[in-house]
Amino acid sequence: MEHVNSIIHAKWIIPVEPDQTVYENHSMTIKNGRIHSILPTDETIKKYTSQEITTLSEHALIPGFVNTHTHAAMSLFRGLADDLPLMTWLNEHIWPAEAAWVNYDFVQDGTQLAIAEMLRSGTTCFSDMYFFPDEVARAASEYGIRAAVGIILIDFPTIWAKDTDEYFQKGLDVREYYRNDPLISFTFAPHAPYTVSDEPLKRTKKLSEELNLPIHIHVQETEDEIAQSMTQHNERPLKRLVKLDLLSPKLLAVHMTQLTSTEIEQLAINGCHVIHCPESNLKLASGFCPVVELMKANVNVALGTDSAASNNDLCMLSEMRTAALLAKAVAKDAAALPAHSALRMATLNGAKALGLENEIGSLILGKAADMVAINLGELESQPVYDPISQIVYTANRNQVTDVWVAGKTLLKNRTLTTMDITEIKDKTIQWKNKIAAACR
Amino acid sequence: MEHVNSIIHAKWIIPVEPDQTVYENHSMTIKNGRIHSILPTDETIKKYTSQEITTLSEHALIPGFVNTHTHAAMSLFRGLADDLPLMTWLNEHIWPAEAAWVNYDFVQDGTQLAIAEMLRSGTTCFSDMYFFPDEVARAASEYGIRAAVGIILIDFPTIWAKDTDEYFQKGLDVREYYRNDPLISFTFAPHAPYTVSDEPLKRTKKLSEELNLPIHIHVQETEDEIAQSMTQHNERPLKRLVKLDLLSPKLLAVHMTQLTSTEIEQLAINGCHVIHCPESNLKLASGFCPVVELMKANVNVALGTDSAASNNDLCMLSEMRTAALLAKAVAKDAAALPAHSALRMATLNGAKALGLENEIGSLILGKAADMVAINLGELESQPVYDPISQIVYTANRNQVTDVWVAGKTLLKNRTLTTMDITEIKDKTIQWKNKIAAACR
Repeated sequence: MEHVNSIIHAKWIIPVEPDQTVYENHSMTIKNGRIHSILPTDETIKKYTSQEITTLSEHALIPGFVNTHTHAAMSLFRGLADDLPLMTWLNEHIWPAEAAWVNYDFVQDGTQLAIAEMLRSGTTCFSDMYFFPDEVARAASEYGIRAAVGIILIDFPTIWAKDTDEYFQKGLDVREYYRNDPLISFTFAPHAPYTVSDEPLKRTKKLSEELNLPIHIHVQETEDEIAQSMTQHNERPLKRLVKLDLLSPKLLAVHMTQLTSTEIEQLAINGCHVIHCPESNLKLASGFCPVVELMKANVNVALGTDSAASNNDLCMLSEMRTAALLAKAVAKDAAALPAHSALRMATLNGAKALGLENEIGSLILGKAADMVAINLGELESQPVYDPISQIVYTANRNQVTDVWVAGKTLLKNRTLTTMDITEIKDKTIQWKNKIAAACR
Repeated sequence: MEHVNSIIHAKWIIPVEPDQTVYENHSMTIKNGRIHSILPTDETIKKYTSQEITTLSEHALIPGFVNTHTHAAMSLFRGLADDLPLMTWLNEHIWPAEAAWVNYDFVQDGTQLAIAEMLRSGTTCFSDMYFFPDEVARAASEYGIRAAVGIILIDFPTIWAKDTDEYFQKGLDVREYYRNDPLISFTFAPHAPYTVSDEPLKRTKKLSEELNLPIHIHVQETEDEIAQSMTQHNERPLKRLVKLDLLSPKLLAVHMTQLTSTEIEQLAINGCHVIHCPESNLKLASGFCPVVELMKANVNVALGTDSAASNNDLCMLSEMRTAALLAKAVAKDAAALPAHSALRMATLNGAKALGLENEIGSLILGKAADMVAINLGELESQPVYDPISQIVYTANRNQVTDVWVAGKTLLKNRTLTTMDITEIKDKTIQWKNKIAAACR
């Protein structure tokens, strides 16, 4: 008998790799935070022992979700200014609110709220873009969730940095500090072509190559953005990025609701990743990302929730369902983006975009044990003809019972093991009282 | 002090009428199944006493959801055949499965599963279209949920009826039997223009006027349906209904993803209702219903989940959120279908379509006490700047804590009071085992 750190017996294990595979009545063992074996339960019982055994009798065990685009701390603005178009929302509500409220404490409390919500809905890795990335990294590391922290960059001064030099310097200092933390990776996160000028984008490109870091940027989110770029630069935003030589397998282009077939080809040839945020795109009426066309062209499409201020949740189960439903109608093909592809998009494709596909994104021996247990025994997921279908089209965040990151249990029977819900809620209400009073 | 049957103290009461109204720290009293008072909590405490007092300290009390289009019993087919286009799905999967499996027991067990799910997600009234309407009426009456039972009609023989005469006769017999049941109302439910020929549609029209019953029919769900109608009748399906004189305030036209501006005008002039089923329309790639254009033309748009086989849930909270998000992107206007309009669509507009607006759909004195309590204290709905926004954009079915129909508590702290979950689940699994074995 071999001793392992943990054994999980599951009704179904859905590894995502190989695609469309479902192992029934299988068990996983974990050793040193990594997936050690996936075998039928009867074999596992004969071969392994552990102090920590979890039995998931009606559950599917799947890879943890990778939320490839969010602004975690903005959760404190959830529902502050709904039902408004992107530019009004940004110019008249979000940016003024950020100017008034965002500071270290805000990012601390907002990120904590977001991490709690993400863990409770099965996200084990998030790619963030916000001010005070030092606090985002600290919180992720402390609570045990994996994070790709964005080294944010924007042309105007903010409380985080006064100019381009300082944005880079402070961001790179954070990276240096967390260099040996296995949970924390980094991306360059220039906000968008319309808020970052050529020189800092060139510098981003250069540093991204030197340091081997992805570039995470909003691109072609709305028709307005295209029109504005045509006026200002006489070219579409993506064209500007092409000229600046930013298209490469390191580019994570977020939103991309406005795409020509030539642009899709360019993204494909250059191995770029598109980060699809369907609920935010719908809510801000930004447009429809041509997901199926992108996938047909072999562009890697991953999934993000965007912030809770334009969604209004950080639930990847919900995002995955919306993506699967919407892609069919946009492509006019009900067979487009079937359930198993949507699940892959929400897990492995995100890992690929972040350059973490050798570490996470699927349940493969040797990968980090980042997993989620989803209880399909709830009435709303019954009957189960196909567990993948039921996960994508019926499961909600309350069916997420257990979450592991690098083999460590962060959610056990829906209770967070590293975070204090009451304290998070109290702090959230304090922020709300201050912000709402000022809005009156 | 006046004695009432029940007192509910709520953090927020959202009556839907008047629109955009939120009463904070208010209480409702119920007498003889009807809303007796809505007053500030301190006044209520001074005026009323009751044996039954519910305190909802972090909850919003809203009108129960009206699911204006579903096929309840099909819940047993949930996830049986996903990711397929409408006609393949119907012809090769659903209709053969129905031919093989649908009988009285199937409808009994499937409807029971559906009612449990609907109550657990805040639906207090559903408009059904399926075989064995006698069983649908019986189940609704027994478990205490309100139902508008469809007197189904289709050109081909089924296990329920062999021909048009029998469809009418059996349906009308059911209506006669439940005539004095205050929870049960009826609609004529001819399946669709492409499955019901002119004569039975004329008869439906005549009977609908005589008996004052709404007509509930799928219309212009897909491009295919239009094309087929053009080939067969040389006119669009709606045109055929116009000729048959079916357009009136009694018509509930379900789906309507294919609409010209002339057709929208016709619907408006004739006071027809459109039943929007966004998740089903997306999943089957049927198209996008022009909800905002319809509303601008003053067409009453209500909301339905369609069956769990094409959704795959019966959750009106989720449907409402999808409707609110999708309408913005389709209308290219983020201010379109704001949260309060979406809530109205999911409640009062459904009541109007069914001719029940004097009885249900809003929290108005004298109306039936059909309500839902939604717990906004969950982390995922925090902070609460605007409770209506948080209900529409963040709340999920697990936040539905209590449900009342006609003043009777059917869900108490998430426990069903009139149904046995374990028994329902057991029966569901038995059906699944039989059906899945036969599919192999």
